[in-house]
Amino acid sequence: MGSDYRILPHVNSPNDLKGMKPEQLVELSEELRRFIVEVVSTNPGHLGASLGVVELTVALHHVFNTPDDKLIWDVGHQAYAHKILTGRRDVFNTNRRYKGISGFPKRSESPYDAFGVGHASTSISAALGMAVASELKHESHQVVAIIGDGALTGGLAFEGLNNGGSLKSNLLVILNDNHISIDPGVGALNEYLLDITTSKTYNRIKKDVWDLLGRFDSLGPKARSAIQKLDNAIKTALLRQSNLFESLGFRYFGPVDGHDVAYLIRILNDLKDIPGPKLLHCITVKGKGYTPAEQNQTIFHAPGKFNKDTGERISLLTSKPAPPRYQDVFGETLVELAQSNDRIVGITPAMATGCSMNIMMEKMPERTFDVGIAEQHAVTFAAGMASDGLIPFCNIYSSFMQRAFDQVIHDVALQNLHVVFCLDRAGLVGDDGPTHHGAFDLAYLRLIPNITIAAPMNEEELRNMMFTAQLDGQGTFSIRYPRGNGVMVDWRKSFTEIPIGKARILREGSDIAILTIGHVGNLAATAAGKLEAEGISVFHADMRFVKPLDADLLRSVAKRFTTVVTVEDGCLPGGFGSGVTEWLNDNGYNVRVVRLGIPDEFIEQGPPQQLYAECGFDTENIYQTAKKYVQKKVKMRVG
Amino acid sequence: MGSDYRILPHVNSPNDLKGMKPEQLVELSEELRRFIVEVVSTNPGHLGASLGVVELTVALHHVFNTPDDKLIWDVGHQAYAHKILTGRRDVFNTNRRYKGISGFPKRSESPYDAFGVGHASTSISAALGMAVASELKHESHQVVAIIGDGALTGGLAFEGLNNGGSLKSNLLVILNDNHISIDPGVGALNEYLLDITTSKTYNRIKKDVWDLLGRFDSLGPKARSAIQKLDNAIKTALLRQSNLFESLGFRYFGPVDGHDVAYLIRILNDLKDIPGPKLLHCITVKGKGYTPAEQNQTIFHAPGKFNKDTGERISLLTSKPAPPRYQDVFGETLVELAQSNDRIVGITPAMATGCSMNIMMEKMPERTFDVGIAEQHAVTFAAGMASDGLIPFCNIYSSFMQRAFDQVIHDVALQNLHVVFCLDRAGLVGDDGPTHHGAFDLAYLRLIPNITIAAPMNEEELRNMMFTAQLDGQGTFSIRYPRGNGVMVDWRKSFTEIPIGKARILREGSDIAILTIGHVGNLAATAAGKLEAEGISVFHADMRFVKPLDADLLRSVAKRFTTVVTVEDGCLPGGFGSGVTEWLNDNGYNVRVVRLGIPDEFIEQGPPQQLYAECGFDTENIYQTAKKYVQKKVKMRVG
Repeated sequence: MGSDYRILPHVNSPNDLKGMKPEQLVELSEELRRFIVEVVSTNPGHLGASLGVVELTVALHHVFNTPDDKLIWDVGHQAYAHKILTGRRDVFNTNRRYKGISGFPKRSESPYDAFGVGHASTSISAALGMAVASELKHESHQVVAIIGDGALTGGLAFEGLNNGGSLKSNLLVILNDNHISIDPGVGALNEYLLDITTSKTYNRIKKDVWDLLGRFDSLGPKARSAIQKLDNAIKTALLRQSNLFESLGFRYFGPVDGHDVAYLIRILNDLKDIPGPKLLHCITVKGKGYTPAEQNQTIFHAPGKFNKDTGERISLLTSKPAPPRYQDVFGETLVELAQSNDRIVGITPAMATGCSMNIMMEKMPERTFDVGIAEQHAVTFAAGMASDGLIPFCNIYSSFMQRAFDQVIHDVALQNLHVVFCLDRAGLVGDDGPTHHGAFDLAYLRLIPNITIAAPMNEEELRNMMFTAQLDGQGTFSIRYPRGNGVMVDWRKSFTEIPIGKARILREGSDIAILTIGHVGNLAATAAGKLEAEGISVFHADMRFVKPLDADLLRSVAKRFTTVVTVEDGCLPGGFGSGVTEWLNDNGYNVRVVRLGIPDEFIEQGPPQQLYAECGFDTENIYQTAKKYVQKKVKMRVG
Repeated sequence: MGSDYRILPHVNSPNDLKGMKPEQLVELSEELRRFIVEVVSTNPGHLGASLGVVELTVALHHVFNTPDDKLIWDVGHQAYAHKILTGRRDVFNTNRRYKGISGFPKRSESPYDAFGVGHASTSISAALGMAVASELKHESHQVVAIIGDGALTGGLAFEGLNNGGSLKSNLLVILNDNHISIDPGVGALNEYLLDITTSKTYNRIKKDVWDLLGRFDSLGPKARSAIQKLDNAIKTALLRQSNLFESLGFRYFGPVDGHDVAYLIRILNDLKDIPGPKLLHCITVKGKGYTPAEQNQTIFHAPGKFNKDTGERISLLTSKPAPPRYQDVFGETLVELAQSNDRIVGITPAMATGCSMNIMMEKMPERTFDVGIAEQHAVTFAAGMASDGLIPFCNIYSSFMQRAFDQVIHDVALQNLHVVFCLDRAGLVGDDGPTHHGAFDLAYLRLIPNITIAAPMNEEELRNMMFTAQLDGQGTFSIRYPRGNGVMVDWRKSFTEIPIGKARILREGSDIAILTIGHVGNLAATAAGKLEAEGISVFHADMRFVKPLDADLLRSVAKRFTTVVTVEDGCLPGGFGSGVTEWLNDNGYNVRVVRLGIPDEFIEQGPPQQLYAECGFDTENIYQTAKKYVQKKVKMRVG
């Protein structure tokens, strides 16, 4: 922290804000913003959202008595200023790093983090729970949920509003309205917020009224003034009653300028004394105060490293050709497939850029649907389309698909509908940590009847799985792949159908068998190479499908090996290795399965390779494990 | 079907309605209602909801060109008249029976069932999918979603509205507003609908306006008339703009009387020609036209058998004392625990009567929360409460808990919060069929870290598990139990703590080991008795916990047996038996696990005992399986 910071270095807890004057708080906000840009430019994280709520954060900690009063930050990647003000300034440069502080509020990290977040739309429900708890315990905590207009489209947020509006507990919801989530906001609610912000409808009505009033001029000044009074009374009623939040039992305040710290303090102080459920509508600018972030909000949502003075992003690309991101392979391939199969449509719940469906959105806008932060709807919407003959490719990050678990079962698989789920960010995702790891999908999908579960080992396989998934006769189909780059520079191969449930044998060996699913096949291939170099003969199959498993291959493996090593970037309970174990057991084979994958615990943040090592399924661990079971020629204990 | 039906016997498809006059349709409605009461009185099913939409159903099939035009019935238990009118009159007496027609719309049953339903709040999303598909295919199907005010509180419905209101596709949502789901409606939305139905707010504003106008009398008649014009203009604007659905981009029509078939036909014909998203608000009476059902809506939601003339319910109770329903044991026990632990609160998403939390609701209304149809919110709300020191008992039916899967992971288990989930209707539920079977919970919970998963074999164990779950030091805790009666007449025992992860040994034997979880332990106990009578020595343990498994017991079993039979009323992939198999494998034991449970397919409706037999885990199957593996003294094949 350079010497050009005057106030921030002295703020060690929100207490230090209490006595400050508005001018000082404005200066503090400016320093906070500068500090966030400085740190995030070299230690990548979420930028735009946090810049947008700097003043709001300062005002909240000034007005409320945190941590007794509770702030719940929806999603939480906008909470950097909150972290910095609550004793984490000096460790902020470890943000999202291995063993560093989390990129999201986290209860175990600080008493100021009232509720752990990461997935969208949880804040109102959680805050309501705290408000009710405070009441029942006869305490008088204030509880504040801060939620973006994007997160407000999630059904959970609506459920929270609906309950909160009738319970009448003391709860303040702050709507942080910047008209963008990662991609620009979509949906009727977004249009509605824009309408009340700009008073478009109200102004139209007002104009109609004044037009009428004009025509009444002939009635004389007494009537004019009476009519004006009437207009005012109706205006007040209209503004209150025309409000969606008022309809749901929340008193509505705003819209207010979310960057005017002095005004925010005044209104928050007022709201503190108003009992019951209330909503303050703040208009903010994502990336506020940092021109590059204001001008390119989607890119500066999480820009990676950049030059803080110019806003230029620091590219890690070298001059030699590199393998593409799985995301881009998905995005490009989807367009290719859609071009030759006009029944294909694309659906994304507010992650068009993240999953690269923006490529199709640009080329075929009428066949691509960004439904907002609404995973449940994305899946049931897809089911509706499929029931009428379309083939939706519904792309949802693995950990967010947890939100639509029931819809996958009840609306899609039960009806055996032809929907293709593409689960991006499957497996350990890295810096975003436990809320975002796609640890569970193989296990939670495997228990669903009627579903095909595939995972590619490389770009070509991803393309061929997508091709296979859209062929006539397929039913519910899921394809999962990790965040980040693949392994093939030359990946634009022509399409080949993959027989459902058929594995691909990479090495035919006899000392040890390794069965892998998905991208970890590459780690195993390296390990196998090392083992072969040492004279150990390895059998390695890229299973490609978790469901159905390749029974022929498993039968043949079971007859030749006493031990099989399985490797997956997914949770061990119920996952791929579990499926192999079930199959071998059910078919009466005495084969020991050594299962490598994510253990039965929540895994923290860190670089994926480091996490693979920690979990025991990086190349070295696969190598060591395979070697151990060759050497021991282990015999299972007989009961 | 008696001779007192004049029209209904001649209606074999909706085509037969097309030429009918309004009077005939009124008579048909009356006959339909009578027929439904007659059949449901002897063949139990959902009654009240279907009676409430008889006229609406007749009008819809009269106006729309089904099945080309598509009707999507939310939840679907109100679709009896729809089924009867669409060719299923003569099989309606097989409703909900084994191999009979389903109690819900089902695509495989009829082309008129455009979308399979069962869980709430899916209709708008599915209908929107169909509307978009129709557009993309340049067809011109009409798509109608019929949704109750209860189902509208589910977040998924809101997500659908939000997307539908901005996509502008041609979609009609009919809000079937009867102010009750199973229990009376709750939440701000419910209050809002009551408000616009009764025009309370509007009338208040109108009164204010007229009061003002009164005072303007002195201005003379010209001004009065001018002001009246002004009032009308504003009233129109106000009514349109003050509407929540208009805020979300839907044109709002209504409220209309949902029992006036002639008027419904007129307005539906008008709406057919209005493009874009629109909502028709129908006021209906649940149980309409059948006095007992109108007067006691909660009981006549699904009344069981009853005397159709008197409305008296036919009790199956005999004079001898019978074991209680698990539901009532839960309900009574929760009150007992809450009386001695004031940190306990109860949460139910609109199933207070079904799960018997109404007992606590009556005794401790301030500590019991019916949050509406909103499983996601129920769980995150519980997490918020737990984060502030309360101990919520959150009761959700097993198959509905699928809706809150992400919230259990992300908001509760990840933060290791002390929430007790009670999963009612776990396992095969019987007549409600595949949408409602609680087949998956053991498997989908087992993959979540930090969670204790328990299932009682009888009432006493349920009580002790609930007691144990609320003790200090526990974290996330889940207890699952089936629909229906337990096995103990004398169940009100005092509480005993159960050591976490400890099984209970029921028989110490040496020829075969049976490990069971939950209520199926009783089936196994009977089978074991039969085996013992034949001289076969059986080891039987009621495992009580799926997570953590009792490692000591498994170790001891593994050393003494070559085969273990596991029994569960849950899906085989990833379930309890899978967990046992994983453990034995991971710990290097060569023990064959013969897993009995729900196979990897969706199970149809039928009496639970019949379904257990079909799935292979009734007493007879357990007996035969155990016997087979004793006799064969099977040796696993060695690879």
